[in-house]
Parts: sequence; structure tokens; C-alpha cells
Amino acid sequence: MGKQKAVVLLSGGLDSATTLAIALKNYGVYALSFDYGQKHRKELESAKKIAEHYRINHKIVKIDLSWAKSALTDKRIRIPESRKNIGKNIPVTYVPARNMMMLSFALAYAETINADKVFIGANAVDYSGYPDCRPEFYRAFQKASSLGTKKGLKIKYPLINMSKSEIIKKGMKLKVPYHLTWSCYKGGKKACGVCDSCILRLKGFKEAGYDDPVEYEVGK
Amino acid sequence: MGKQKAVVLLSGGLDSATTLAIALKNYGVYALSFDYGQKHRKELESAKKIAEHYRINHKIVKIDLSWAKSALTDKRIRIPESRKNIGKNIPVTYVPARNMMMLSFALAYAETINADKVFIGANAVDYSGYPDCRPEFYRAFQKASSLGTKKGLKIKYPLINMSKSEIIKKGMKLKVPYHLTWSCYKGGKKACGVCDSCILRLKGFKEAGYDDPVEYEVGK
Repeated sequence: MGKQKAVVLLSGGLDSATTLAIALKNYGVYALSFDYGQKHRKELESAKKIAEHYRINHKIVKIDLSWAKSALTDKRIRIPESRKNIGKNIPVTYVPARNMMMLSFALAYAETINADKVFIGANAVDYSGYPDCRPEFYRAFQKASSLGTKKGLKIKYPLINMSKSEIIKKGMKLKVPYHLTWSCYKGGKKACGVCDSCILRLKGFKEAGYDDPVEYEVGK
Repeated sequence: MGKQKAVVLLSGGLDSATTLAIALKNYGVYALSFDYGQKHRKELESAKKIAEHYRINHKIVKIDLSWAKSALTDKRIRIPESRKNIGKNIPVTYVPARNMMMLSFALAYAETINADKVFIGANAVDYSGYPDCRPEFYRAFQKASSLGTKKGLKIKYPLINMSKSEIIKKGMKLKVPYHLTWSCYKGGKKACGVCDSCILRLKGFKEAGYDDPVEYEVGK
């Protein structure tokens, strides 16, 4: 009997790349990404490169979220910079119910390819304050997933209680190709260094004692 | 202060049309339908007509499920006819995690338009045996929805414990335009009369003591 299969949600960022490396230890991995009109579509290029690096199956599903209100998809809403109190309130970059949508698609994909698990790199320590990143949400969604699918599929969220620096240390041990990842909410040539996502990433690398291999406009 | 808003998942079938009529008693309704490559795309025409009948907002979201294994979307899998023991096992018409995907989109839409509730016409009495139609799934998803959204959104599933004939009796009182609805899994000119959905519908009308206003190939 071969390895069990798992679907891993791969955004192309640091957390999902680390989650992928964790899943690969025990599963045959099918990576799944979403083109949902995010301003930082560049992360999809990163997702592709990470999947190629690991030579795994990679599927990109296009979903129309042009009607959803979020700074990550709506050109009229600016991505906030150098926000104080990151994680203390829900910022405009929150995409309504995004993780639920992605998890639901991942469950559908898992049932279709007969996989047993779905991995997501959600994290509730060094995070932006999104309600769908909290452990209590995942515990509840876990139950819904077990009950609402044919196979009683389980969700795995191994990073949920780790700090960003712990995630990076773990990833470094697993040789995650962080130079291929993209975390910045803006889709520029270099990472901006001032959005929530860049700030949390830079802080994580600093605390972990490693140099972030991607280039930044400022802040590094 | 005006009425609270609710998003209602409207497939175009009997159950969702009745749910819409129930929601309209207390809410300003925004109907949401999905074009997911279903063979019975005709139901989307019904959904449009029902929304026009009630003069409410109606949004159709296209999602690509061409890769999902189901008799409802895959031309290579035949829709079963005159199945015995309907509801006793999960049939090939099950679309993996479909209700979770639809509910997640509905939650995203509800957060975007600042609605307070999401309605779904799921039913676990006269049903096809899909795992994502059972009350225990909705109770779990309810919790995930409350925790995973900004507003702590609630799901309402008023038909869950009703028989098909009870649903029809309720709908008749509310003057639901059943002549506009479409339940058949096949996309023919007339309803086939032999798929699970037709069989359950015909049985429901018979037990409720009403004539089904739609035309059938056989079985009426």
C-alpha cells in the first residue's frame, strides 16, 4: 500500500510552504491554490515554483470574488501600511469567509482524488487578526468536515499555535525553499516591507536568527 | 430601521423556493445561485424566474467544479433511475462538499452586503442521502460560521426536519410559485420522473394532496 494522500492549500506564502513540507513527511501531496483576483497574484507564481521544486501535483482553481469586499481584491481599498496592533482587530485585508471557501474546495478535491486529509497553514499567533485563522474556528470546521463529507475528512492545521519564528525554524530544518515564497499583500517587484504580512514575516526571520532570502523595498 | 437582510441559497428547486418564501416573511432577501456545470442547468433558469417573481436581488456565481467527481457534473457518469432505498446510502449524484462550498460563498456574500443570516433549504427527511444534508452537519457548520466570520453569521435551515409533503403544504400556504421550480437532475424539456429528485417530489405532491404543476415524461 502506498502513502496516504493529502490535499495541501498552497498560497505561495511562507506558512503554506512550511505546511507543505510538513505534510510531505507522511503523505503523497496534492497542492491546491486559488486565483481569486488577489492583488498579490504574484503569490501564484510562487506557489507554482514551490510545487515544481517538490515535484508534486498542483492545481489552481479560479474563483470569482470580484463582488467580495476586501482590500486584497478591491482596487478602491488601499492595503494598510505599518499598522499598529496587528492581530488586535479585523483589518480591511480580511477576505470574507475566504478560508472556509478554500477549505470547502479542498475537501471536494480530496473526496474526488480519494485523499484522507486536508492541510492548511493557518496561524493564530503572529497573524493579522482574521476570524477564520483562530483555533476555535478550525475545531468547529473540523467537525463540520467530518460530518459533511463522504469520507469524514479531517483538516490538519499544524502551525496554528506556532509563532512566526518557530514556523521559520521548523521550515529551515525541513529545507523549505523560502526564496521561492511570496508573502507581501502588494504585488510589486520587491516585497513592500510595510504591509501586515511583510512586517510579520520580517519580524519572524529576525527572531529566528535567519536572513529572509526575498528582496524588500524597505524594512529589511 | 429597515428589515434585516438575509442571503438565501436558491437552486431553483422546490426546497429552496420554499425556503425563500419563508425567509421573505422576516428579511430583505438576496438570492444566490451557482453555475457549477450541473447537467440540470435548467434549474438556473428557474432560479431567475423565481427571483423575478418575488422581485428580489439575484446573483449567480460561476464555480469551476469540472474536476469534481459526481454524476451531476460528469457526463461519463449516468444519473441513476428509479433507485430503491433512496436516502439509505450516498448516491453517485453526490457532489463532494457542494453545500459547504455554497454556504461559504453565501457567508462571504452576506458579510459583503452586511446581511445577518444565510438560509439553505437542506432537508434530511425525504432526501437523497447526502452527508451535507444532515442536521448534525448543519449544527457543526453553524458553529464554524459563527466563529469564522466577522459578524458571527448564523445559518438557517428551516426545512431540515420536514417531510417533502410538509414542505409543499407550507409552500402552498405561502403561495410559492411551484410552476416555476425545477427539481429533475436531468436537464430535459420535461422532468424525467425517474431520478431520485423527481421521485421524491412526485411522492411529496401526492402525499400533500396537490397536483404538481410541472410536466413530467413519466410517473405523474
